[in-house]
Amino acid sequence: MSQLHFTSEDWKISEGRYWSTLFNSISGPRSAVMIGTQDQSGIGNIGLFNSLVHLGANPPLLGFVLRPTSVARHTYQNILSSGRYTLQHGTVDLLSKVHQTSAKYDATQDEFEEIGFEKTYIDGFQAPFIQGLPISVGMEFLEEHLIQTNNTRLIVGEVKHILINESLIDDDGYIDTSMANTILVSGLDAYHSHDHIKRMDYARP
Amino acid sequence: MSQLHFTSEDWKISEGRYWSTLFNSISGPRSAVMIGTQDQSGIGNIGLFNSLVHLGANPPLLGFVLRPTSVARHTYQNILSSGRYTLQHGTVDLLSKVHQTSAKYDATQDEFEEIGFEKTYIDGFQAPFIQGLPISVGMEFLEEHLIQTNNTRLIVGEVKHILINESLIDDDGYIDTSMANTILVSGLDAYHSHDHIKRMDYARP
Repeated sequence: MSQLHFTSEDWKISEGRYWSTLFNSISGPRSAVMIGTQDQSGIGNIGLFNSLVHLGANPPLLGFVLRPTSVARHTYQNILSSGRYTLQHGTVDLLSKVHQTSAKYDATQDEFEEIGFEKTYIDGFQAPFIQGLPISVGMEFLEEHLIQTNNTRLIVGEVKHILINESLIDDDGYIDTSMANTILVSGLDAYHSHDHIKRMDYARP
Repeated sequence: MSQLHFTSEDWKISEGRYWSTLFNSISGPRSAVMIGTQDQSGIGNIGLFNSLVHLGANPPLLGFVLRPTSVARHTYQNILSSGRYTLQHGTVDLLSKVHQTSAKYDATQDEFEEIGFEKTYIDGFQAPFIQGLPISVGMEFLEEHLIQTNNTRLIVGEVKHILINESLIDDDGYIDTSMANTILVSGLDAYHSHDHIKRMDYARP
């Protein structure tokens, strides 16, 4: 088994696409999460993100990363205008549709209709959910942080609603996403399933 | 299959630990990554993080989330003082040792020695690596962003070195972590393996 050592000298001189794919995948798989929003006329948007991170439990905060807004970012514009968005895990049985949410549709096209997802709402909450998914979260926008080095943004929001199948929650609150067959994605295009190994006891020195 | 609807009214009134576990796991599994640092006297620290996110490929940036620094955070202090840290994916065969890196050792204890990992270095790079892991990244600290709502921090760094088994890289640069049996963790204690399903073509409307 041969070990390679790459440095910035390597990615300075050779083909950019190779390194972009490598850097996108080196951080490993993360949950493939669809973010649902709508504009002020009610046109629905769905974006696919693999950067969802837990930021805290009290208050319950989640973050995700938005690429630079040099091109149209409907998710970002809708979050700023409505202050609301939905997070839903993709599932293995819906892989093709989940991946299709990464396509860039025109702002006049409702992505729920285009992709063939049924739209549903919670009363009083102005962001659309995809009907029928096992884990759904309604979010309120709180903060954005601009990464100076490359103009990406960390978007921070607070959990306001959770819709979840009761069978996925253990007695202590743990949500077993592997039972729901939620999907993971590495880089932009490589999808993975996941299997529970075990839960460990709190580690002490 | 019964669907539950929780709102902030629910987590305001009931037991905090249940909700902490639930919010930690609702974002799904992420790669279990060990961050290696050392203090100015060379004492090694390893912290376990599940918040590694890709922030950009040119320059190659990765971010991770640090909890509030109200208690000692050796990883944070060492990154600020040395400007360098290492990222290494845990692997399924090393699960017990990987989980043990989440234990809080005293600052005078070298965690490599305590846990039983062999320390190794790259010439001229002041952060320690664990010997023998399939995917290792040497990072330079760039930015930190304080989340106002709860005092967590996003730590942003640039990739400077990659050490990787050649067999894990596809021709186009894609790193197949499932071949390396890297491990995922959901919440603080639930470990998962992952299996490659497939790579998809670029999605178009």
